[in-house]
Amino acid sequence: MGAIEAGGTKFVVGVGRGPGAGLLARAQFPTGDDPAALLTQVIAWLVEAQRTHGRLAAIGVASFGPVDLDPRSATYGSITTTPKPGWRGTDIIGPLRGAFPGRPIGFDTDVNGAALGEGRWGAAVGLDDFIYVTVGTGIGGGGVARGRLLHGLVHPEMGHIPMPVLDGDRFAGSCAIHGRCWEGLCAGPAIAARTGRPADALAADDPAWDLTARYMAQAFATLTYVLSPRRIIFGGSVRKGGRLGEAAFLDKTRAALLEVLNGYIASPALTKDGVRDFIVAPTLGDDAGVCGAIALAHDALRSGEPHRP
Amino acid sequence: MGAIEAGGTKFVVGVGRGPGAGLLARAQFPTGDDPAALLTQVIAWLVEAQRTHGRLAAIGVASFGPVDLDPRSATYGSITTTPKPGWRGTDIIGPLRGAFPGRPIGFDTDVNGAALGEGRWGAAVGLDDFIYVTVGTGIGGGGVARGRLLHGLVHPEMGHIPMPVLDGDRFAGSCAIHGRCWEGLCAGPAIAARTGRPADALAADDPAWDLTARYMAQAFATLTYVLSPRRIIFGGSVRKGGRLGEAAFLDKTRAALLEVLNGYIASPALTKDGVRDFIVAPTLGDDAGVCGAIALAHDALRSGEPHRP
Repeated sequence: MGAIEAGGTKFVVGVGRGPGAGLLARAQFPTGDDPAALLTQVIAWLVEAQRTHGRLAAIGVASFGPVDLDPRSATYGSITTTPKPGWRGTDIIGPLRGAFPGRPIGFDTDVNGAALGEGRWGAAVGLDDFIYVTVGTGIGGGGVARGRLLHGLVHPEMGHIPMPVLDGDRFAGSCAIHGRCWEGLCAGPAIAARTGRPADALAADDPAWDLTARYMAQAFATLTYVLSPRRIIFGGSVRKGGRLGEAAFLDKTRAALLEVLNGYIASPALTKDGVRDFIVAPTLGDDAGVCGAIALAHDALRSGEPHRP
Repeated sequence: MGAIEAGGTKFVVGVGRGPGAGLLARAQFPTGDDPAALLTQVIAWLVEAQRTHGRLAAIGVASFGPVDLDPRSATYGSITTTPKPGWRGTDIIGPLRGAFPGRPIGFDTDVNGAALGEGRWGAAVGLDDFIYVTVGTGIGGGGVARGRLLHGLVHPEMGHIPMPVLDGDRFAGSCAIHGRCWEGLCAGPAIAARTGRPADALAADDPAWDLTARYMAQAFATLTYVLSPRRIIFGGSVRKGGRLGEAAFLDKTRAALLEVLNGYIASPALTKDGVRDFIVAPTLGDDAGVCGAIALAHDALRSGEPHRP
């Protein structure tokens, strides 16, 4: 399989069957502002990798967005309205089809790719209904329901859900569009704006950790009520909890989730013990993106194009 | 097909293929507090209906809840933790299996049933991704994603999502568990508690309509961000807008939704014109429940039991 993790900062490209030893080769290229030149580089690398590792049966692309995922659309497989210089309206899969004629190409959002990869090889193996959320520079979510990635009108944009503001919190939020939405309260830039320092440098006893855990819990409660997932995978840099540490910050978030739900959902997963397996960290680490793209390639091969797993 | 709409107030039972002339016979029975006696009545009616209309190929049940929808669970097909006297732990499909051996039995929530029925014959024909929401005594939601009903840890409990409180709104909310969650701000009892009169008697210019429309819009924005539906069907009595009227209240809600989204999602469905087809009233009316149950029966027959459309 060929795999492309198309990120806003870098493109990671790989060939292989899955994570670990299954990933036979990988390389990365800065995203830059010249998509045509970058796609030429990426394709050249994949063509060269075929010489070493054999014909690529299919290719998967997990892309930053917003992207057009509607197979009936004329702009299917392209990045649509991004403010990123040079990238608006970039057709990603067109050049791939030209270079690899006849090969199935899977295409989805970066977070949907990561969700699929964690479902196949990582923190959600065996589950048909789960959510992958990344909280870093922004907030993104991907979901699997009844074994299939969520798509629809566009694709989930979970980061911008409206949020109740906690009593006494005067922070105005950092989202340019919605102010105090989830992303405007919990993403890395929000924490930096609230505290004056980046999340990874924030002291263990900074009150922002309690606030962030409680806001994360409100958002996870919303996702739980709406989608009824069996697990939520909490990825991205903010979950690492700065100097507080990942384990302590995840525990804070889990405890806050039980408070917000207030016993409404009767399930062993939403008890003091069970919640440790309900809110979890991802397990694929730095390979999550490229493994997600490999998973998209597998599904494209199995289901035929366009990718509808 | 045999169909049972198992409601908290009444059970509606029918036989047929679909809505309108497709519904060959129907009857209703008060739910009461003696499930065994009621189920005996319901089964006797269905057995009698078979004599007139021919063998029931499958049976569908759309039930009030919470219900156990996990086919691997020992209590699959039963009502679980309801506070309704007599009904806690009631096995619904056991007696049906006894009376109709070998017949596939579809079982789901009332709102998932209504969603399926509206998708097959009503306001969401041809759509793979949509949501059905009912706002009446409580708030419930059912969702179809990639053509399949949403299930998971339990089932969606959309009514209890956390909500941002609007500036200056001092109403404490009516939800016994969460106070000012969506249901606590927008369901019929919330409107009655806020205004001192029931929604259907509320004057056209009562400020509660503006507030309710804005809270509905926040919740619809959340559902749109999380699930990316192609349409939201707004059912239940509150949408009728009391003396303001359904058309005006739906328009208020649509306009408020565009304000809350603030242009973030680029889609023709979320423009001033498009939103009229994005937020719509259901079209199956009083037959929505029993038609949902017929749809569940069709799917049980097609997919085999247990119902996993």
